[in-house]
Amino acid sequence: MMQKPLSKEEQEWVEETLEAMSLRELIGQTMQDHAGRLPFKGDDEAALRRYLEQYPVGSFFIGGEVIQKAAGKAEDYRDWAGLLQGISRFPLLFSGDLEFGAGSAVRSLTAFPPLLALAAADDEDLAYEYGKYTALEGRAAGFTWALAPGTDLLLNWMNPVITTRCLGDDAGQAARLSAAVMRGMQEHGLAACAKHFPGDGVDYRDQHIITTVNSLSEEEWFSTYGQVAGEMISQGVMSYMTGHIALPWIEDGAGGAGSGPVPATVSERITTGLLRERLGFDGVVLSDALDMGGFLSWGDYTQRIIDCFNCGTDVLLWPGVRYFAVMEQAVEDGRVSRERLKASVRRILELKARLGVHAACAGGEDTRAQPLLDDKLPPGLDRQVRQFSRELAGRCITLVRNRTGQLPLNPQEVRRVLVIMMNKVTEGRRYERMNLFVEQLKARGLEVDILDEFEPLTTLRQWEQSGVRWDAAFAPYFLPLHGMMNTARPVGEAAKAIWAMQHAETVRPIGISFATPYLLQDIPFLDTLVNAYSLHEDTVELTVKALFGEIPFQGSSPVKAEI
Amino acid sequence: MMQKPLSKEEQEWVEETLEAMSLRELIGQTMQDHAGRLPFKGDDEAALRRYLEQYPVGSFFIGGEVIQKAAGKAEDYRDWAGLLQGISRFPLLFSGDLEFGAGSAVRSLTAFPPLLALAAADDEDLAYEYGKYTALEGRAAGFTWALAPGTDLLLNWMNPVITTRCLGDDAGQAARLSAAVMRGMQEHGLAACAKHFPGDGVDYRDQHIITTVNSLSEEEWFSTYGQVAGEMISQGVMSYMTGHIALPWIEDGAGGAGSGPVPATVSERITTGLLRERLGFDGVVLSDALDMGGFLSWGDYTQRIIDCFNCGTDVLLWPGVRYFAVMEQAVEDGRVSRERLKASVRRILELKARLGVHAACAGGEDTRAQPLLDDKLPPGLDRQVRQFSRELAGRCITLVRNRTGQLPLNPQEVRRVLVIMMNKVTEGRRYERMNLFVEQLKARGLEVDILDEFEPLTTLRQWEQSGVRWDAAFAPYFLPLHGMMNTARPVGEAAKAIWAMQHAETVRPIGISFATPYLLQDIPFLDTLVNAYSLHEDTVELTVKALFGEIPFQGSSPVKAEI
Repeated sequence: MMQKPLSKEEQEWVEETLEAMSLRELIGQTMQDHAGRLPFKGDDEAALRRYLEQYPVGSFFIGGEVIQKAAGKAEDYRDWAGLLQGISRFPLLFSGDLEFGAGSAVRSLTAFPPLLALAAADDEDLAYEYGKYTALEGRAAGFTWALAPGTDLLLNWMNPVITTRCLGDDAGQAARLSAAVMRGMQEHGLAACAKHFPGDGVDYRDQHIITTVNSLSEEEWFSTYGQVAGEMISQGVMSYMTGHIALPWIEDGAGGAGSGPVPATVSERITTGLLRERLGFDGVVLSDALDMGGFLSWGDYTQRIIDCFNCGTDVLLWPGVRYFAVMEQAVEDGRVSRERLKASVRRILELKARLGVHAACAGGEDTRAQPLLDDKLPPGLDRQVRQFSRELAGRCITLVRNRTGQLPLNPQEVRRVLVIMMNKVTEGRRYERMNLFVEQLKARGLEVDILDEFEPLTTLRQWEQSGVRWDAAFAPYFLPLHGMMNTARPVGEAAKAIWAMQHAETVRPIGISFATPYLLQDIPFLDTLVNAYSLHEDTVELTVKALFGEIPFQGSSPVKAEI
Repeated sequence: MMQKPLSKEEQEWVEETLEAMSLRELIGQTMQDHAGRLPFKGDDEAALRRYLEQYPVGSFFIGGEVIQKAAGKAEDYRDWAGLLQGISRFPLLFSGDLEFGAGSAVRSLTAFPPLLALAAADDEDLAYEYGKYTALEGRAAGFTWALAPGTDLLLNWMNPVITTRCLGDDAGQAARLSAAVMRGMQEHGLAACAKHFPGDGVDYRDQHIITTVNSLSEEEWFSTYGQVAGEMISQGVMSYMTGHIALPWIEDGAGGAGSGPVPATVSERITTGLLRERLGFDGVVLSDALDMGGFLSWGDYTQRIIDCFNCGTDVLLWPGVRYFAVMEQAVEDGRVSRERLKASVRRILELKARLGVHAACAGGEDTRAQPLLDDKLPPGLDRQVRQFSRELAGRCITLVRNRTGQLPLNPQEVRRVLVIMMNKVTEGRRYERMNLFVEQLKARGLEVDILDEFEPLTTLRQWEQSGVRWDAAFAPYFLPLHGMMNTARPVGEAAKAIWAMQHAETVRPIGISFATPYLLQDIPFLDTLVNAYSLHEDTVELTVKALFGEIPFQGSSPVKAEI
């Protein structure tokens, strides 16, 4: 089943609306603006009116950091979306990076464990609920479009950017679970956006920084990323995000601006030839953000924008308002065809009709959204969402290695423990969230010694020589997603910690990764490793319970963690 | 020509000395102590006497950081070595990490550009002088043993630890040049130590942190590392350092303590079977430092030490003074044989005889050392050394890519320049030495704008929009060796800089790596790249001259920098 056909009434609305639009309005539909980058205060209604008159954009991205006024309150997001919906001549879509629940973007809503945790739990019903609850909370807060779920595959363990933002390295599992998340979203009023086409996870680099390369062969691609894409499309995903990712097998000999790789975001062969024609995707193609490093080296602004549109992109993400003048000029001088523009706008309007925003959101109030009470869903529903999140947290924790049978620990015998905070500090940033783990240990009444500075390297040995003994030692690891580290591996202070921990002679540390599932690559000597995938609050609490045998380890590794 | 035979007189000294030694003295010969880790002030003569009586070690490692009193003065090093030579019952050797000239260890002596720069200059005469001048300065400062030259090969561009500390990726070139450095050293009174056996540069990790793996096949190994080792041995290298590096083809199925890789430092197959027997090395085998992470995970202290000695090691580097008790016990209960111990001590005494320390250094004054005047070699010789260093600095600078013919710059046209300091800060450490480059630009009278903070990413564009224009932009990159980063790649702030620099629309940056030669792996969009290999003072000055066409780029890349 591809996307289901529109009703006659919806189809008429699309065509009438399309005909009613000026050139500038058509262009505006193909731009997604960034609510956090408006040149005035976001709640200034008069300024918003003037802005939308001048720049009649079709959709806004909003996120946790971007509306200063909101300060993480769902009601503020909803009110702001409603305000704009009332002002705009045509219905707007509001998108967000709702990758791990609506809490990914809105502080008062529910943050779920990341996609890789979902893959570790490996349950299609949970995956459907992951999407469903994201949608119910998200739409209540004004969102109609999730830039999620991730459909990338973690094929290169060094990949620094999709680490826990994807469903593992197995295409069959990823296809099954991502399709379930997508259905859960779309059946509850939130458009899904599979990302990133043609697939991240093969390169060791990050397309925020440079154009990356998916270097698989055609055959390899079709049996991995192609399989996932086929599943998403056949099950009716409404939108697809192209990445600043090249696919050499398809561009071979094609060249382009300069001699560098050709990112999908400007590649007609990838966006139109492969995604649209060969895979048959008939929904909206959204580019990844156009201020990313992976896009910026593609010619000058005008060339980049026109190449991006002409390759088959329907909506350009954050091109900035110079977009209007460039596109008007390009349509006028024929570099962009008006037919092609209308074809994109038609798809965008079809998406809006599918989501019912043309009817449900008219005037500002979204009649299909759940109400918010005290900034949350109504109590019964809110409880369901939070229970789901906690269940997933418990189901994902994975015992990767337990060579000496050290786990579970015996609560009767373990009184004093050591925590080696591998990277409480990385790049000078302190990760206070690591303290969640220590607090959970202390809450059990344990005596906790903490090592979080690694010079001298021999500190642990000195402590031992002064008579200190521990019943267990933990080495938790964390590195934030989107931290722009260009690596997921332990570097700097965390690397020094690996050296320092080996100076202990009376205790062997239990590794716990709250980030990359591949910690054994850099700390192969660990006898014991638990993967917990994130510092999600429930996950941290339940990880400690699992360490002490109060709940079982239920996750199964969604990647080959022991390479 | 292997090492030349000892004279009859030398041979007699060796045998007599060997016979005169107590068990504890024999054991002491096989330990290299760390001058910076004495449990008292280094110039406390009475304490030194008591220490050497209790721990009659055979050699000391001394380095820039280790003698507090010295504060980088060559005379203090020489005096300290002389003091100990006078106290010790048997002649001592003094080693240092004299990898890039004696200035690597002693501030008042001459620091050379690193080995990779020597490979870029690719001149066997320069290589010989590299060793010769290291020896003349080093021996004048009390050193008789360089833990150099590096004989590793940079086969994995991600290797984080030998980056510029080796002679490139071509075995033939590395063999030729490292043998010349070694001859230059040994023909001027300084024992060389080829390192690290069986060869670093294949792994992406660092044996300071964990045991690393040289994963080449037997055939690949012999055509690369084996070729270099064969050359060093046939030309008479006096010592070889084994690394905490495993060689799976030789250990296949051998196992060991735990199921981890077997580092050469405990591997009889590598140290005795391959190095000693198959390659025929008859000099001293020194282990790498035993407090490194790559060694610490090999069983408990006692097991590690005994395995290290028994596998064929002659001298253990920094085992700490518990070594004496462990070895005495092991000889007593037969785990270490007295014959094996004497065989190692004989080789160590032969090395001392070869260097003439038994005669030349008796009583404290080294009659074979050059004198020091004002803390340097005598003026004529000092000038030669510094001229050599500057010549090498000029010869190494490599124009890796010049796609648009941007270099050399026209001094008439370039008045205002931008410097994007890619990682002035990494891991919270500030690299003030990066300022050398800016100072050289300012000294030319250029107006220099500096970008060294990368939030917001759009700063460069904002500057441009305010009307600023540059005639050229430079993106210098640096990461210190031994920085324990576990990576040589731009991470953190440096990665963010790569994104940020692409926001400029009026200028394309010229990349200059003062570290890894592989910057194009992470910044492939650079049209122009210069590799300068280090922030060596002359090199930085001459790099700026080359950028402006005043001297030619003379280096040729010693690695495949454009992969």
